[in-house]
Amino acid sequence: MLNINKNFLKLKENYLFSDIAKKVKEYSKENPDKKIIKLGIGDVTLPLTKSTIEALNKAVIDMSKTETFKGYGPEQGYDFLRDSISKYYNKFGVKLDTNEIFIGDGAKSDISNITDLFDKRNIVLVPDPVYPVYVDTNIINGRKIKYIDSTSKNDFLPMPNKKQKCDIIYLCSPNNPTGSVYNKKQLEEWVEYALINKAIILYDSAYHSYISQKGLPRSIYEVKNAEKCAIEFCSLSKSAGFTGLRLGYTIVPNKLIFKDINLNKLWFRRQSTKFNGVSYVVQKAAEVVFTKKGQNECKAMIEYYMNNAEIITEVLKSKNIEYTGGINSPYIWLKCPNSMKSWEFFDYLLHEANIVGTPGSGFGKNGEGYFRLTGFNSEENTKEAAQRLNNIL
Amino acid sequence: MLNINKNFLKLKENYLFSDIAKKVKEYSKENPDKKIIKLGIGDVTLPLTKSTIEALNKAVIDMSKTETFKGYGPEQGYDFLRDSISKYYNKFGVKLDTNEIFIGDGAKSDISNITDLFDKRNIVLVPDPVYPVYVDTNIINGRKIKYIDSTSKNDFLPMPNKKQKCDIIYLCSPNNPTGSVYNKKQLEEWVEYALINKAIILYDSAYHSYISQKGLPRSIYEVKNAEKCAIEFCSLSKSAGFTGLRLGYTIVPNKLIFKDINLNKLWFRRQSTKFNGVSYVVQKAAEVVFTKKGQNECKAMIEYYMNNAEIITEVLKSKNIEYTGGINSPYIWLKCPNSMKSWEFFDYLLHEANIVGTPGSGFGKNGEGYFRLTGFNSEENTKEAAQRLNNIL
Repeated sequence: MLNINKNFLKLKENYLFSDIAKKVKEYSKENPDKKIIKLGIGDVTLPLTKSTIEALNKAVIDMSKTETFKGYGPEQGYDFLRDSISKYYNKFGVKLDTNEIFIGDGAKSDISNITDLFDKRNIVLVPDPVYPVYVDTNIINGRKIKYIDSTSKNDFLPMPNKKQKCDIIYLCSPNNPTGSVYNKKQLEEWVEYALINKAIILYDSAYHSYISQKGLPRSIYEVKNAEKCAIEFCSLSKSAGFTGLRLGYTIVPNKLIFKDINLNKLWFRRQSTKFNGVSYVVQKAAEVVFTKKGQNECKAMIEYYMNNAEIITEVLKSKNIEYTGGINSPYIWLKCPNSMKSWEFFDYLLHEANIVGTPGSGFGKNGEGYFRLTGFNSEENTKEAAQRLNNIL
Repeated sequence: MLNINKNFLKLKENYLFSDIAKKVKEYSKENPDKKIIKLGIGDVTLPLTKSTIEALNKAVIDMSKTETFKGYGPEQGYDFLRDSISKYYNKFGVKLDTNEIFIGDGAKSDISNITDLFDKRNIVLVPDPVYPVYVDTNIINGRKIKYIDSTSKNDFLPMPNKKQKCDIIYLCSPNNPTGSVYNKKQLEEWVEYALINKAIILYDSAYHSYISQKGLPRSIYEVKNAEKCAIEFCSLSKSAGFTGLRLGYTIVPNKLIFKDINLNKLWFRRQSTKFNGVSYVVQKAAEVVFTKKGQNECKAMIEYYMNNAEIITEVLKSKNIEYTGGINSPYIWLKCPNSMKSWEFFDYLLHEANIVGTPGSGFGKNGEGYFRLTGFNSEENTKEAAQRLNNIL
């Protein structure tokens, strides 16, 4: 008789975004004349850049002719793309061998699937609040999870507690949802802690392109010896608007060896067994993202979103509302005014300003009383939202 | 200290295709003037169809404009595609709710990831020879595997042994590598066996579009009550040439319930936690595959490959070489002549006819002494290969 993986039953039902959608729908129904502005979900809104579109068009032509048609590609991704990513990392001082780069269909898949490589008995360390995928994936696998507090007391940048043992550490910088960013010294401390504990750091750098302040690391491999303890996950979703096109990549250094087992080889084995590579046309589109022209186009997109974020933070500042993010990150993490709870503030914003955001409590217990807004709407809508916020806060 | 999933160490290194590549490379180096014809790997060679290309072009335009740009799509796939797949199944009498259809990036990913839903303690039943992914995935998960012999004695269509207990059953029809196809009565027997044992059938129908003989089931759901015991995996790789574009789908019926747990909901939870959907442009390309025009174009492609297969089987017939497949399947599974072993025959073909095929022993112990050829080359090359085979066999 088939036995189900019972760990699934331990998952909390995640109603965050469906509850938001339900409330918005109800409100719209009762108030059909109100224009609702969504500053909630972390999805991009600008179309793909010119050179990405050109590359897609060319790739489609390739697929239409026998001579240039592409069937199965390498499971790890085409050399042309891995080469261009390797060169991109070179620019900020990180040397990567192309065989250390694995192309996937998004950071979410890879950061979940990587747990295939680890035994059930590892202890997982996760900041709270956090992107819910880290927690849920490990619950499905039956692992024990410990939380570290990410609060205003540590500027939402929790640091290792040397007395606390763990085996797998999740870090996300710039952080989703708090927008906070680790500096190099802080990452050095994490790397040191991981090396002492023979733990692994799973480093989510999906938002690294939003870092504008000099000196802040965009890759954990800017830290010495990180290649001996860290896997880095990245995505073109937020940097190049690929949320609907789907492409991410994972860096597994050749020097990442635990008990004589080379994790690069293990991940290659996992991917070549359980995955068949990313669409050729999407890989061709991704290739141009890393060219000089592509990077300039992406920079312009990011500046657009960051300008929106600034429009919002200007209001928060003028109202003396505590917040992090909005700089080096498209996310703004604010303390709900008047000690409101997250969902209370959600209702207040929806009803009084017709603005939709994300209740912080959806990201963990420390998120209660906090709220996430994003720069991912149009400038026009963001300006209007700012004016409305100004009126009601 | 990080503990690795030690099950990875139990995997056999899979050198099949890399060993083939190595031997071909060496031979080419020593014989640069010889024209090698590859009838080995199961990859398509014809370019995408006209309407697929048109759909891709349109979808790329959508992604270039703010008004039509698509960000994150539904994790389970867009309604437009699931609707069109549901209508396609209606044509052969299978009624599917759109919520029973999950769009993925290929059958390989889904058929591997589905095992997340099952406890480690299930016993897995796998035919030998078989597509290696079924075995390797379950070894990674630490499950016990039992094999059932697929040999000429049962026409490479193993049937259930009622005395043998198991929980998870892999069936692939039309089969890779043997090309054999279950008829309805045989599938009914499997469904009955699964229901009695409260086991699940994981049914791989990636090659169902190659079925031309009337009466052979193209979906396991043509069998009564299969919706209570089977998940079906399919792919557009071989039917529409999507090996490089990447799209598959998985059918998890609403009636599939084990110990009160609904597997449709479980798979949705798995996919929405660990996956972020398939590229919008690829889903738009897939949508047209299921239109009347798209189906006619695919039929023409398949006929082209099947004509190639026939060119090869004609030679085998004239030489009295035993084989299966080549009808209802692009694969031809032949008994190596003169009691040669699989690799022996590989070398013989490579050296004497400059033809590359796949040694049957790479698919399991029962594959020893067998060899796989495919119809996936050009007609011109296939004709030349047939002539060479005629000379040396």
